[in-house]
Formats: sequence, structure tokens, C-alpha cells
Amino acid sequence: MDAADVDEVLRRVSTGELDVESAGALLARLPFADLGSARIDHHRSLRQGFPEAVYGPGKSADEVSTIVTELLAHGSGPVIVTRADEQQRLAAEAAGRARAVTPQSTATADRWTIVLRPAADRGRRILVVTAGTADGPVADECAAVLGAVGLAPTVLRDRGVAGLHRIVDALEDLATAEAIVVVAGMEGALASVVGGLTPAPVVAVPTSVGYGAGLEGVTALLSMMASCAAGISVVGIDNGFGAAMAVVRMLKDPA
Amino acid sequence: MDAADVDEVLRRVSTGELDVESAGALLARLPFADLGSARIDHHRSLRQGFPEAVYGPGKSADEVSTIVTELLAHGSGPVIVTRADEQQRLAAEAAGRARAVTPQSTATADRWTIVLRPAADRGRRILVVTAGTADGPVADECAAVLGAVGLAPTVLRDRGVAGLHRIVDALEDLATAEAIVVVAGMEGALASVVGGLTPAPVVAVPTSVGYGAGLEGVTALLSMMASCAAGISVVGIDNGFGAAMAVVRMLKDPA
Amino acid sequence: MDAADVDEVLRRVSTGELDVESAGALLARLPFADLGSARIDHHRSLRQGFPEAVYGPGKSADEVSTIVTELLAHGSGPVIVTRADEQQRLAAEAAGRARAVTPQSTATADRWTIVLRPAADRGRRILVVTAGTADGPVADECAAVLGAVGLAPTVLRDRGVAGLHRIVDALEDLATAEAIVVVAGMEGALASVVGGLTPAPVVAVPTSVGYGAGLEGVTALLSMMASCAAGISVVGIDNGFGAAMAVVRMLKDPA
Amino acid sequence: MDAADVDEVLRRVSTGELDVESAGALLARLPFADLGSARIDHHRSLRQGFPEAVYGPGKSADEVSTIVTELLAHGSGPVIVTRADEQQRLAAEAAGRARAVTPQSTATADRWTIVLRPAADRGRRILVVTAGTADGPVADECAAVLGAVGLAPTVLRDRGVAGLHRIVDALEDLATAEAIVVVAGMEGALASVVGGLTPAPVVAVPTSVGYGAGLEGVTALLSMMASCAAGISVVGIDNGFGAAMAVVRMLKDPA
Amino acid sequence: MDAADVDEVLRRVSTGELDVESAGALLARLPFADLGSARIDHHRSLRQGFPEAVYGPGKSADEVSTIVTELLAHGSGPVIVTRADEQQRLAAEAAGRARAVTPQSTATADRWTIVLRPAADRGRRILVVTAGTADGPVADECAAVLGAVGLAPTVLRDRGVAGLHRIVDALEDLATAEAIVVVAGMEGALASVVGGLTPAPVVAVPTSVGYGAGLEGVTALLSMMASCAAGISVVGIDNGFGAAMAVVRMLKDPA
Amino acid sequence: MDAADVDEVLRRVSTGELDVESAGALLARLPFADLGSARIDHHRSLRQGFPEAVYGPGKSADEVSTIVTELLAHGSGPVIVTRADEQQRLAAEAAGRARAVTPQSTATADRWTIVLRPAADRGRRILVVTAGTADGPVADECAAVLGAVGLAPTVLRDRGVAGLHRIVDALEDLATAEAIVVVAGMEGALASVVGGLTPAPVVAVPTSVGYGAGLEGVTALLSMMASCAAGISVVGIDNGFGAAMAVVRMLKDPA
Amino acid sequence: MDAADVDEVLRRVSTGELDVESAGALLARLPFADLGSARIDHHRSLRQGFPEAVYGPGKSADEVSTIVTELLAHGSGPVIVTRADEQQRLAAEAAGRARAVTPQSTATADRWTIVLRPAADRGRRILVVTAGTADGPVADECAAVLGAVGLAPTVLRDRGVAGLHRIVDALEDLATAEAIVVVAGMEGALASVVGGLTPAPVVAVPTSVGYGAGLEGVTALLSMMASCAAGISVVGIDNGFGAAMAVVRMLKDPA
Amino acid sequence: MDAADVDEVLRRVSTGELDVESAGALLARLPFADLGSARIDHHRSLRQGFPEAVYGPGKSADEVSTIVTELLAHGSGPVIVTRADEQQRLAAEAAGRARAVTPQSTATADRWTIVLRPAADRGRRILVVTAGTADGPVADECAAVLGAVGLAPTVLRDRGVAGLHRIVDALEDLATAEAIVVVAGMEGALASVVGGLTPAPVVAVPTSVGYGAGLEGVTALLSMMASCAAGISVVGIDNGFGAAMAVVRMLKDPA
Repeated sequence: MDAADVDEVLRRVSTGELDVESAGALLARLPFADLGSARIDHHRSLRQGFPEAVYGPGKSADEVSTIVTELLAHGSGPVIVTRADEQQRLAAEAAGRARAVTPQSTATADRWTIVLRPAADRGRRILVVTAGTADGPVADECAAVLGAVGLAPTVLRDRGVAGLHRIVDALEDLATAEAIVVVAGMEGALASVVGGLTPAPVVAVPTSVGYGAGLEGVTALLSMMASCAAGISVVGIDNGFGAAMAVVRMLKDPA
Repeated sequence: MDAADVDEVLRRVSTGELDVESAGALLARLPFADLGSARIDHHRSLRQGFPEAVYGPGKSADEVSTIVTELLAHGSGPVIVTRADEQQRLAAEAAGRARAVTPQSTATADRWTIVLRPAADRGRRILVVTAGTADGPVADECAAVLGAVGLAPTVLRDRGVAGLHRIVDALEDLATAEAIVVVAGMEGALASVVGGLTPAPVVAVPTSVGYGAGLEGVTALLSMMASCAAGISVVGIDNGFGAAMAVVRMLKDPA
Repeated sequence: MDAADVDEVLRRVSTGELDVESAGALLARLPFADLGSARIDHHRSLRQGFPEAVYGPGKSADEVSTIVTELLAHGSGPVIVTRADEQQRLAAEAAGRARAVTPQSTATADRWTIVLRPAADRGRRILVVTAGTADGPVADECAAVLGAVGLAPTVLRDRGVAGLHRIVDALEDLATAEAIVVVAGMEGALASVVGGLTPAPVVAVPTSVGYGAGLEGVTALLSMMASCAAGISVVGIDNGFGAAMAVVRMLKDPA
Repeated sequence: MDAADVDEVLRRVSTGELDVESAGALLARLPFADLGSARIDHHRSLRQGFPEAVYGPGKSADEVSTIVTELLAHGSGPVIVTRADEQQRLAAEAAGRARAVTPQSTATADRWTIVLRPAADRGRRILVVTAGTADGPVADECAAVLGAVGLAPTVLRDRGVAGLHRIVDALEDLATAEAIVVVAGMEGALASVVGGLTPAPVVAVPTSVGYGAGLEGVTALLSMMASCAAGISVVGIDNGFGAAMAVVRMLKDPA
Repeated sequence: MDAADVDEVLRRVSTGELDVESAGALLARLPFADLGSARIDHHRSLRQGFPEAVYGPGKSADEVSTIVTELLAHGSGPVIVTRADEQQRLAAEAAGRARAVTPQSTATADRWTIVLRPAADRGRRILVVTAGTADGPVADECAAVLGAVGLAPTVLRDRGVAGLHRIVDALEDLATAEAIVVVAGMEGALASVVGGLTPAPVVAVPTSVGYGAGLEGVTALLSMMASCAAGISVVGIDNGFGAAMAVVRMLKDPA
Repeated sequence: MDAADVDEVLRRVSTGELDVESAGALLARLPFADLGSARIDHHRSLRQGFPEAVYGPGKSADEVSTIVTELLAHGSGPVIVTRADEQQRLAAEAAGRARAVTPQSTATADRWTIVLRPAADRGRRILVVTAGTADGPVADECAAVLGAVGLAPTVLRDRGVAGLHRIVDALEDLATAEAIVVVAGMEGALASVVGGLTPAPVVAVPTSVGYGAGLEGVTALLSMMASCAAGISVVGIDNGFGAAMAVVRMLKDPA
Repeated sequence: MDAADVDEVLRRVSTGELDVESAGALLARLPFADLGSARIDHHRSLRQGFPEAVYGPGKSADEVSTIVTELLAHGSGPVIVTRADEQQRLAAEAAGRARAVTPQSTATADRWTIVLRPAADRGRRILVVTAGTADGPVADECAAVLGAVGLAPTVLRDRGVAGLHRIVDALEDLATAEAIVVVAGMEGALASVVGGLTPAPVVAVPTSVGYGAGLEGVTALLSMMASCAAGISVVGIDNGFGAAMAVVRMLKDPA
Repeated sequence: MDAADVDEVLRRVSTGELDVESAGALLARLPFADLGSARIDHHRSLRQGFPEAVYGPGKSADEVSTIVTELLAHGSGPVIVTRADEQQRLAAEAAGRARAVTPQSTATADRWTIVLRPAADRGRRILVVTAGTADGPVADECAAVLGAVGLAPTVLRDRGVAGLHRIVDALEDLATAEAIVVVAGMEGALASVVGGLTPAPVVAVPTSVGYGAGLEGVTALLSMMASCAAGISVVGIDNGFGAAMAVVRMLKDPA
């Protein structure tokens, strides 16, 4: 039963073909699965401010091309492709240009983030802070996604706690930021230190940087979860996209 | 917006106060959260054959009493309390007797399973097989829950693979069962052996029996998941209730 | 001691060469390993409805060819090769065609599932539901194996819980299915949601899809084992074959 | 060297007792550890909006009393004691009453949260959603801390995904909340489902509720980290206080 | 079908009531589960040299008493009760004395090992070596079980590798032993050192002695499995009984 | 201080240059590191019956060649190279032929085991039993090493417990073996079943066969450690060499 | 063969009863296990500066008393009892007073450290730094052991990184210390920060403080092992004694 | 605000342009991040004796070249590049030669350590001891870094505990060393044995050598953390650089 069916019920009520009680019974039986476009619209509005995102791995270049084309055709918001390989990047870029959209591609590790039709910058104060050079690609993915929705961050790199002055130098920025993403591998201690220096929301991203006891990011993840600085929250390992989306949720425009 | 609201919309359509288009728009905005009793009824029918179950831990004896009383007041199916402590057991039994229902209580480890208003036995061939004496309480919980819904099983105890004849003795029963629950701790090998001896569905329950390398049931869990016998499925450690419910799902009466 | 030996003992009893007591003693010493063909026949009947399955990894293409040829020569039921590499697939297909059997090959991840001589469809209502696109190959393996034994499922793809309407849309199918396989990686939450929406048996397959905190499927596995929906059972990570076999056990024809 | 020392240096410069170069050398040698009250004031302002929190475990009742008394004496903001045992609770309450402050104590598991001098309510829309009854104490801790800083939440209890209607009923609230804390044990699937239904920031708290495969909260933690819903962030197991603080960071008043 | 049934078949063959072919068919259908006492005898003979062992945990004192009484009544070999609590110990001792058997009870941690009717000493050279004082109870359980079957060992205590001379002092004994059990917690290094100093079979028992990084014996277990000394084999954590049985298997008398 | 030094001390005692007391003091200070050849000889005799083994990984082909040449030059016992890659195999074979020794090379997974100058067969009854085809390479390594020292085993392949008759068929062999190596991956249940069917020493080798919940052999390892069959001992994952050496220790000729 | 035997050999050489060659052969056969007191003396000198330490758990109060008495009777260095329970503490103190030694007892968690006959203070600059109040007992154990050997440290408490000024305040002390022990639970980040602020050796002690994601100290342990600050080394969880001993090794007096 | 700003403030105070109160306020607002060169100089002095180290992975060859060139241009101490791939090695060597510095490159596993401008040897007694041949590359990295700072060690290879004489032969060296690095994979027992034979500081490096139960170095790590020899400290898996730096911290020249 879809919206047309509902209209038909209503029409029959309006003409007296169907009494109120029977119509109520009919509608009451509506499984909530059948609300069709209404629910979808509703759902979409819920996501206001979210970019349309295409996760690359497991999709063919053709599939990426098709999805990007479709997303550009319907709607006007930002479209983003994450973790794209070389083939997928070329496909996404071509799909963009075919619709006169200039793609912005960022290399993130051995993958690409492609942004199409980014939102205008909203002038918020966002920081992305990395502990070491090797955390850069995850931070880049995060920054690209934030940029796509108009929340382009300042990226402070290589601020690991072993050289404390490197993070202390950023004290002013930390104190005034509206949201901070901390990207750190190894022992992930940067999240605790940053959390202690700022009242801003801190989203920590553990990275798989490091070896041995870093356990592919699990050490940093646990370390961030157990942080002695209150109110730090954590997203998945190497999940720069997830961290960006957590910030998007925090800074969405008032409804 | 609830069912009364829907009726009001319909009434206004029937009187011409509201045109079809406007009414459709109103109804289309119905978040699917608002379908009220219809959905709940639907949901209840989905659960047909499931016992109403109350999980004891974290509830006060008074809360158990209140819930049991309410469940007995509405509906006529089986009510079951699991993992009840001594206080909860007494409360549940009293709540039953207050409504002239005779409680059946089974000791399971340091906890109780209480069954009230069990369904009539359905005469199916269910087996619960344990590897060792110490797996008994988990098997007992499973058997009590199965009994509550009319699927009282035969329980074969102490059939661990180290004495292969003990499981081979049950070959006939295994071959003709409609469903088999295997309850085993330590290395959990019994599930693989049973799985190889029967075409019946096998639900394996790892138990926290054993010590050291048994890792509180994790070894048995992993062992059962990795079984070389095809088509064995597994529920959580010590989860006799879950195994019973898996069997309930398999053997529910045709709709 | 084999069947001939037993006959010899009996012959000597019948001629009086051996008295009953001595013969009983002889037979009593029969190790149960020596019952020979009787036991094997019995065992075969136990497996009725199971496909003959060949697990590819660790076998040469020649070995696959030999085994498939032999299985096609003896018996008339379905033969299935799982996790075959390209060489093994070609060998299996050739072995099939050499016996005038048309192979059906399904790509599953970087492997193949090949079905030969599938059973006629039995018209049962089976669902295979996946959370995301990347869970597809595991679902495909499961569906191919189910198809081989006459239990071809409907496959619902991309029904992850982050877009709840995608699973709610399937409510009708879920409510009436005879068995449901849920294939999900990442956090595996789909199994819990499906389990709450249907009284049907639910077999959950964790997949190694996702990265970081997904821990190669272990997170989904644990999540499914700990599900708050009662009666869900779980098979091994990425084990589409195992899930299919669990369904086969549940829906085998009455003996 | 503290602020008085700095003033003394300046005074001597102003009187010519000290030349600029020497004074610069003196100040340049100031280890940044020695800025005294300036740094502390600065630091305190950074924390604007944070409650003064005392973590109970490992402290004597006397120590709790002393700290609470001191915190109430200096400053005017909220003071909160978390995870207090019975003795600590009585000590904190007495310390409050001694300064004419009415304590508000909330039972959380076998511990107490005591709030003294709570901030006025700020009228924000915060939700705390729990999966099951047993997650209640963690949610209560979270709500008490939020209440202390003027962010008293609405608590929706028992909305686990196995009964999907229970969470769908809250759709309206979820869609309009400014921040949502999801408290869930077992498989933690509620966080993914909520994340898919709202654009609001979602802070997930895994709880140690459940047994066996729940692994004392680790399963829920991993599940939440690996969530298929983008932008969910996670705090430590049972860390209701941490989740509250994460919300405090998000909703602090503009500087 | 049991031994009596077999005799009846044979009787009918001897009398001509049944021809050989029919009788053969009857017997061939014997599921191997039905061989009754014959199999049990056969099975028992397989175990020649094994003590009859009763594992205490999960049994009532009465059950222990009953089982011990029965085991003493049938057969003449050693009977052993392991991990008995105080009640079980008293019950086992009483059961022994009631049959004029003198019990030997050994305290092992907070449990008891009781030996009844031990075999005569066989004069073999067995060593049980412990790393530290705290490994003593596990070694004692092992020694008691070995003593029960006539393989009473020499126990060398406190020979951990941090004081290398303590193990070097035992070089002569190590070189001439027929079997060696190494009992060690913490890092379990003693097994590797002993393995390098002797050609004898070495059975390593990890113990849960130590704290923190010892991970309740898992560190020692892994360490022993990964030993650089070839040919060391390992039993479960704290499993002194298992180690004794491994030695029993190695040194059983020729058949 | 070496043997020459000792002789010099003795010489000076014999000539009266040194008195007994002073000489004793000198010798007492001998660190036990300085006993030179005596200790080495002693140590070598301890290893009597052990093959000289060269572990391939991490060595260059030249290094393997040099070591093999040297081992063949000194002594007359068996020499074995394990886990050799193609280059190392060729080097080892050439080194053998250069000394007129015929190499025997066995393919084990993607590696080789090369035996040179094997001992004469000692006619013992050893079994190596595998659960599945894929466990073959580990069993082959084990068998090659056993063969090198004159303990060539009978290898029974593909006796996994899911087809119980396959292991029951071997009952006679199991009952009379002097030592049994069980090689099994997945859930490793074969070790428990074999342990229950034989009084012989059982050395279990977990293999990394299988995927997902097999956890690269950890599941089988834990399962074997937690076996309900008493007296089974375990070596490291895929460690066919270690299992062979454990048997060598058990069956060494009397000193 | 002991020292007396050596003397006898020498005597016979000196009298000509034994020639040099034969005596050399005799001595060369000395197993290195037989060097007796010489080796022990040597070993003792190796330990110079180490306290005699008695680990409480697993020992009776009587055993503690006996050992302490004996240690006080022989030698003159410090004696220390660690992890003593109340009974053991009283026994150790009484044993000390019986020999006119004044015991110093420090409460560490629910255990005691007792020091008897401490060495004179050596005037070294040692720091023990804790992250939080709850790390205190581990730091106290460490400090008590250091004090016993004349290395009494300065203990800086509650310097966790969430309040960075607390550690920065100690900059001077950190820069000039000869050795630093960092005691931290939760995420253990303090070790990295301290390591970046000092060139001194840093020994990190993870503690089991914290809950949930702290994993009983494993998170801190991993975090410290993976530290981005070079040259930090780590001891076991809660192992204050071990950390003290690591410092003792570093600062032993020149031989 | 830097030192110049401070001087300007002071100048204005000295000229009366600024009163003391205002100047104090200005300086009090100095975030401690702004102390500029003073702090950095201070920090540099802290690091005296540390090599400037460049970690290769994640950097381009060009970046390595640039950093090396810069480090050689400023300062005169040792420069070291670790874990360099072939391209990075060539770039580092060329950058050195361009400044007339002779590079020393050491192969470590599949990576290189390059040392430029090493310090003069300081004549200290350092040992690096490896358990097996395969631990060599980690030891080589450690030795190269130590050599760069003038602490070139003696490397004792292949001293695993399975052949105890190999470590006992080094007794003299162990007893007199000033610091010892133990590099061991598999079960890591060598650290405990060495720790028991020497009073020197022992830094243990677990390596990922070995397979199966070695768990990529985790077994060795845990084993070393749980060592029965007191005062051993541990660095991360395969972290030869970290171990060298720990020694550098211990043996830095007096300030």
C-alpha cells in the first residue's frame, strides 16, 4: 500500500463509499513499511547537512560512476567518494566533469577522497590535529569530508606529546575551536592532552600507524577510550570520514 | 498522532471539512512511529509461540512480581522468569499463586528458572545433549524454557567425546530428532561429533565450564564456530534460554 | 573382523562347530570399528538432503576434477564446489560437462562456487538479507548452496540498520519466511533488528567486511552472539556455506 | 615564581633597579610551569561549564569531605561526586549541608552520584536512550551529571532494537534532539539504529550488561566503534560521566 | 539390542530357526551403539593403567560418595578424586574407610586430591619441577595422581630460571629422568631451559601464578607453546592432573 | 679460563708451586661458563637420538649449505632442514650430494623438509592422524622428521570427527600405537576423540587450517588445551617438527 | 662432586697419587651443576645492592616469619616483604623486633610492604610520578622498595596529562632526575609526556586503575609499549617492586 | 608573543609608558605556549646525547633528503635514519655525502639504518644479546643506534636458553656490563635468564620472530613483562631503536 492507496481510501471516505470506522481499520493495518515516499522524504530531511557519500571498496569503477552521476542529477548538495582506488577516482572525476562539476581529489594513503559540488564554507573554527607525520592521510580524509560540507578545518600536523611544546604552541587555537578532531596512532596520548587543554568537543581517531605493540590501532583506540580527560569520544580506527561526520552532527545548522 | 487522530482526519474528510489532498498530506507526514496499536498487534502476532520472558538480573523482587502479575493478567500463554535469584523466585511464585497458577521452578546453577502457565506439550522430538555433568544447569535452563512452550526435550547427560561410546549410544535418538541442542564446555568438541551423526538442526551452546584454557567458554564458542561439521549454529556462552528460543523459531507451528 | 567374519561365525554356529556362548564371546569382542558397510550406509542416509560438497582450498585442480567426477558417477544428488580458485573452477566445470552436467558457477569474492546437478526447487520461503553491498559475496555463496539443494532464497541486499527503512520495507517478507540468513559485517546489528521483527529461525553470518574496529569479523561475531533478540544462532565468519547448511538441516524433508 | 614575583620584577624595572635586558633574562627563564595563578585562571576559564567532579573510588570518606568542602568554598559552580560508596555519599552530603547546600544523590548501580549546587537548567533538548532496563544505572549517572550543569536530559528507557517499535516510537524526539547519548550493553546495536534516525550528535556508551559473548562490554564497544551509521562517537565502557562530559563540550555556551 | 539379544540371535541360528544370511543381516544392522558390556570391557582395557578419576567441582558430596563407593566395589585399581572441596574430601574419605581402604589426601590450593587404593610403585624415574613456591599446589596435584598409579615422582621445587644455579643443580636428575613435568607460572621460561638440558619427554604445565601480564596463566601457556626448545608439549593451565595423565600415557606397561 | 688453564693449575700443584688451598680457591672461582669441551660433550650426549636440525627461515641458501656441510662432516647422525624455501632446498641437496649423501625432500606447504643420512628404522608403532586434507603438509613435516630418526610413522589422513566412522575405522591402530600425533585445524576436536580411544601418548598439533573463527589455529590450540580427554599434550600451531621431537623424546632408546 | 671433592683431587695431585692428565680429565667432567658454594658466592656478588625480597602471596604467616628471621640472621643488607596480608605483616614485624630491627610498614592497596634494616640513603635524585590518586599504592610499593636500598625517591602525585600544568610544574625535577618511575593507569599517557620532557631513564608501570576500556591495566601497558617518546621501558602491571628493581639495576654502585 | 614582545613590554615599563599593573596583566595572559626560544633551548638541552632520528616509513625519499640535509646543517651531533627503504637509504646517503659526511648503513630486515656523523666512542661496556639468528636484524638496528651515540655494544648472537651453555659462556660479560639489551622472539625466556645472571640494567626487546603461538611477538612481550627476574624492563616489539634509546637515557654523561 503506497501513497496512492492512501489517497484512494481518503477519496472513498470523502464520497461516502467507505465509512470512517472501516477506513480507520484499513489505515491502521498499514505496516509502517508502506509509507513510501513520505518516509523517505522525512528521512532525507533528517540527514540535512550530511554529504552524499560513496564508499569505494567493493564497488566497480562503473558502479561508482553511475552512483555519482545519479547523486549529481538529484539534489544540489555535496557528493563525496571515499577510499577510492585509482580507477574509481578517474570514474568519479569523469562523472563530475560530465555534469560540469569540478572534482577535488585528495590522496589519502593509497586511496583517494573525491569531493564534488562542495558546500560554501560556513566559517566555523574546526581543528584537525595529528600526532605524527604518518597520521596525515587519515587527517586528510577527515579534512576533505569536512571541507565538502563547508566546515573546512585548520590542520595542525605533527603535534605528538613526546615534544610537548608542539601541542602547547597550539594552545590558543585549541582554546577557541568549536570542535577538534585528534588523529593519533601509537599510544594515542595526544587525545588526552588535547582534552585537558580545551573545553571544545574532542573526537579522537585512532590510527593504525606504528607497529608491534600498537596492534594496528587497537592500542590507540583503547587508550583513547580510557582517557583520563573527561568527555573525549572516539570513532573507529583510521576512520577520518567518521570523525568528520561526528563534527557535522555537532555543528549542523539550527533546524 | 495516534489512532484517534487518524479517525479525526477521516471524519473531517467524510464531512468535507478536509479535502483528499490535504488529508493525504497529513497522513503522509505520519512518522512511522505513530501507528500505535496496529503495529503492536502486528508485532505480537509475530511472536506467536514465544513465551513472555522476564530476565531476572538487575530487577528487584518487587519489579519481578509486578511484571509477572501483569503478564498473567493479559494473555494466556506461557510466562517464564530466567536467572532469578532466591528473592525473585519467591516473588514470581507468589505472583503466580495469587492468580491460581502453579509455578514450576528449576534450579540452574545459582539461579532459578520459573515457568508459569506452560503450554501443552506438542509431542515433538527435541534433544538436549550435554558433554559433562557440569553443563547440567545450562541444559536445565534450556529444557525448562522448551517445556514452557510445549517442546519438552529429552535430556541426554554426560555424553562427552572422550568416552565416545556415550554419544554413540544415542545414535538412534540423534538420527530422528527434529532439533538438537548441544551443551558443552571445555573444548566443545561434542557439537562437531553430534553434527556429523545427524541431519537435524544443531544449536550449540558453549558453557563456561572448565578452567584455564577454556577461557570461561570462549574456547568452546570458537571451537563450535569453527566446527568441521557443516550447518551447526551457535548461541552465546551459557545461553540456555537463547538455544531454547532458537529451537522455538525452528519448530513454530505453521501460521 | 568384517561382515564375512561374522557370517563365518554364524555358519559355524549353525553347523554346531561353535556353541552359542563362544560365539557370543567372539561377537562381543567386535570392536565397533568393524561393522563396515552397514554403518556407512546408515551414515549416508543420515545425510539425506545434504549436497556433496568439495572445499577448494588446499586441493589441486586435478584433485578437484577427480573428486567431482567420482561424485557425479555415484549417486544423483547435487554436487557443489566451494571457494574454488580459477583453476579449480575450470576443472570442476570440465568434469561436469564430461558427464553431460551443466555447471552453474557463482563468483564469491575472489573465489567461485560451482553447482552441478542441483535439486529441483522445493518452493520454500527462504530469505538471505545483507547489511551492505560488500556482504554480497558471502550471501552469494550461501544462495548458491541453498539453490543447489532446492532451497533457492530471495536475496535482499543492502538493508543495514543505519537506514532503518531499508529493513522495514522487508517486513512482510521477514514475517512470513521459513528461515532467514542475515549476512552482516561491521557491527552486525542487522541480526538483532531482524530477529526482533520475525518469528522465523535466524542464522547470522558475521563477515570480515569493514576495517579497524571490525576486527576482521570478530566484532560482528561477538555482536551476533550477544544479540538482545532471543533465539538467533550464529555460524563462522564469512561462512555462507555453513549458514546454508544450517538452513538445510532446519528444512529437510520429513524422513 | 608566581604572579607576585612577576610584579616585583616589573616594579624593579619601572624604578630602574633592573634593566630591561636583565629583566628579560629573568622572565625568559621562567619555566612555563611557574606562571602560577595566571595559568590556573586561564586553565579554569578553559573549562568553563565543566562541573568540578570528584571520582570516589580510592578516596577515603574524609578525603571526599575535605575536597567537597574546599570546592564549595571556592567558586560557585556545580560540584559532583561520582561512583561514591555509602560512606562517601554520607560524607559528601554532610559537607554540602554544612555549607547550606542541598545535595541531590542518585543511586547508580552499587554506587552513588551526588550533585551539589547544580546550575540552572539551560532548556536544551538532550536525550539519553537505553537499550534495556539493566543499562539504567549508567544512564542515571549520565543524567545526573548533565543535570548538574543545566543540561537535564529526557531519559528514554528500554528501547532495544529487538523490539524495533520501541525506538521508532521516539522518532520525533530523536529528530529534534540537540545531542543524544545511547547507553547499551549486549551487542550495542541501538547506537547504529539511532544514528541512522537522527542528524544529532550521538555519543554511545557501551555497558557491561549481559554475559558470555558480551565480554563485559567489549562487544558493545567494538560494535559501536564499527557502526555502519556515520558520525557516531564512543566513550568508555559504563562511562556515563564521560558521555555527559562529551555533551557538555558540545553544548557549552558561546565564549 | 544388547548382549542378550545377540545371544538370542545366535541361539536361533544354532537351532536352525534362523539361517546364516538372515542372522548376518540382523547383526549387520547392529548400530555400534548397542554392543553393551563388550564395548565397555574393551574400552576399559584400552585405559589400562589409568586411574578411575572423579572431578569434584559441580558434584555434591553425596554424589562423590556414591561414585567412590561404586568404583571401589568394581575393580581393583586406583581411585582418585580431584579438586575436591572440604565436604567432598570428607565424603570420599568416609567412602574409602567404609570399604577398609585408607585414603591419602593432599591439599592442592584450596582443593584436595584424594587417592584410594594406589598402585604399587613401579620404580620409574619421574621428575616434577616447579619454578616457584606458588606453583606448588599444581605440582602436588600432579604428584598425587602419579603416585596413585605407581609413578611417584621426585618433586624439585623453586627452580625458576632467575636463579639459574637452582636448575643447574638438578642437571643429573634431568639427564636421567624418564619423564619430566615442568610446572611454571609467570613467563614459564623454565620449560625451555629444562627442555634444553634433557632428552627426556617434557610436559609443561602453565600455572595461573603471578598477576598483571601473566594473564592468569595465558602468558606461560603461550610461552611454553612457543618454546625454542624442541619437543616440549603442553597441557592446560593449572592442569596438574592432565600432566600426570600425559606421563601415564608415556610410561604405561607394555600390553 | 679454559682446560689448558686448569691443567696449568694442576701442574703447579703437582710441582708444589701451588698449595692445595690456593689451587682450590682458584678453581672455585671458575665461572661455570669456562668448562669448555667437557660441558659441550656432556650436552651433546644429552641430545642422543635428536637429529641435527636446521631451521630455514632467515638463513641464506649459502648459510644453509655451510651448516649442512659441517654437520655432515662431523658426526654420523641424521641431518634435517626444515621450512626450507626452494633455494635452500637446492643448496641443502647439493651439500648432501657433495658428501655422497642422498637427500630426501618432502614438500610441506610452500616449504620443504630435507632429510640427509636418516637413521635406520627402529620398527616402532607411531601414528600421525590428520583431521582433513589441508592438515597434510604439517603431518608431512612431522612424518619426515620422525622418519629421519628411525621412527617412520603410519599416516592416517582425513579422519575428522564430522564423519565419525573415519576415525572409528582406525580403532585397532589407535589402540596399539606407541605414540600418536594428531594434526587438526578448525576446532581441533579430533584430539579429544582420539584421546578417548587410546591409552597411548597423544601429541596434538593445532594447524592454521580454516578461516574466520579458526583464528589462524588459536581456536584449535585452545580447544586441544581444554580437551576433556585426559593426558593430551599440545605443541605449537603448525609445529609438525615439534610434535615429532616430542615423540622422539618419548621413544628414545634406553641410555 | 663438591668443593671437598675438588680439594681431594688437588691433594692427590700434590702428593703424586694422581697425575695432571688424569686430574684434568676428572675436573673436566665436572658437570657445571657441581661448583657448589663458589657459584653461589659468585651469584650473590652479582646481586650486590639488591634487597632480599619475600613475596607474600601463597606463603603462610609462619613461613614469612621463618624466612625473615633467617635473612636477618645471615647478612646485613635490607630485607623486604612485599604484598603481605595483615597476618604476614604482623609476623614479619615480630620477626624483625625479635632481632632488634625496627620494621617500616607501608600500606599498598589491600597489602603491605615491610622493610627491615634499610640501607643508608645514597643521596640520588629519583622521582616516582603518578597520574592519579588511585595509582598511589603502586607508587608507594615502589618507593618503599627504593627506600630500602638507599634510593628513597621524591614522589610526585596526581600529575595526569588531562591537567597538563600539573606535570609541567615538575619540569625542573624531571630534567635533573637520575631515574624516573611513571605510575599510570587508564590510558597511561603520562609516560609519553614525561619521556618527552626529560633525558633521564623512564621506567613506566601500568596500573590496573580505571575500568572498562582500561582492561585491568592492559591498555596502559600497550600504550606505554607503543609510546611515541623514545627510550621508555615498561614493567608489568601494578609491578611497583619491579620498577624499583629496574632503578636499582641502573644506579648500582660501581663494582 | 615572543621574547621580543616581552622585551618591548619591559622597555615600556622602564620608560613609564606602561604601569606595573598593566604590564603584569599583559604578561599574565601569556599562554605558556609563548615562551618561545627559551623553552625550545631548554628542551634541546634536555635531549643532550640523543641522536637526531628520522623514522623512514611514510616519508618520501625527498623528504628524508631534506630533513637529513637540514639536521646536518644545524648542530654537530649524530643523525640517524631508521627503517629506511632502498630509496630512502640512497637519498640519506647522498644528502650526507653532499655535506662531506660518510654514511654508515646497516641492513636491518628489509629496511636500513643509516648513521651520519656518529659520536666518538665513549668506551662503555654495553651488551646486545640475541636468542636466535632471526633476531639479528632487530639487534643490528639497536647496535647501529647505540654506535651512533658513542655506545657501540658488543653483540652476542644466538644465545637462546634451549642451549644453556651458550648464555652461560657469556657469564663474565653479563656480570660486568653497564647495560644489556636482550633481543628475543618465540617465548622470550632469554630475558629472564639473563636478568638472573647479572645486576646490570636489562632492557628486553620482544621480536616477531617465530610463528603460531608466538603471536607476532606478543608472547615474547607478555613473557618478558611477567618475568620472574626482578627489574627487567621492556620496550615494544621489534623496537631495537627504542631499546637503544633506553640505554642512552641510562648512560648519558653527567650534566
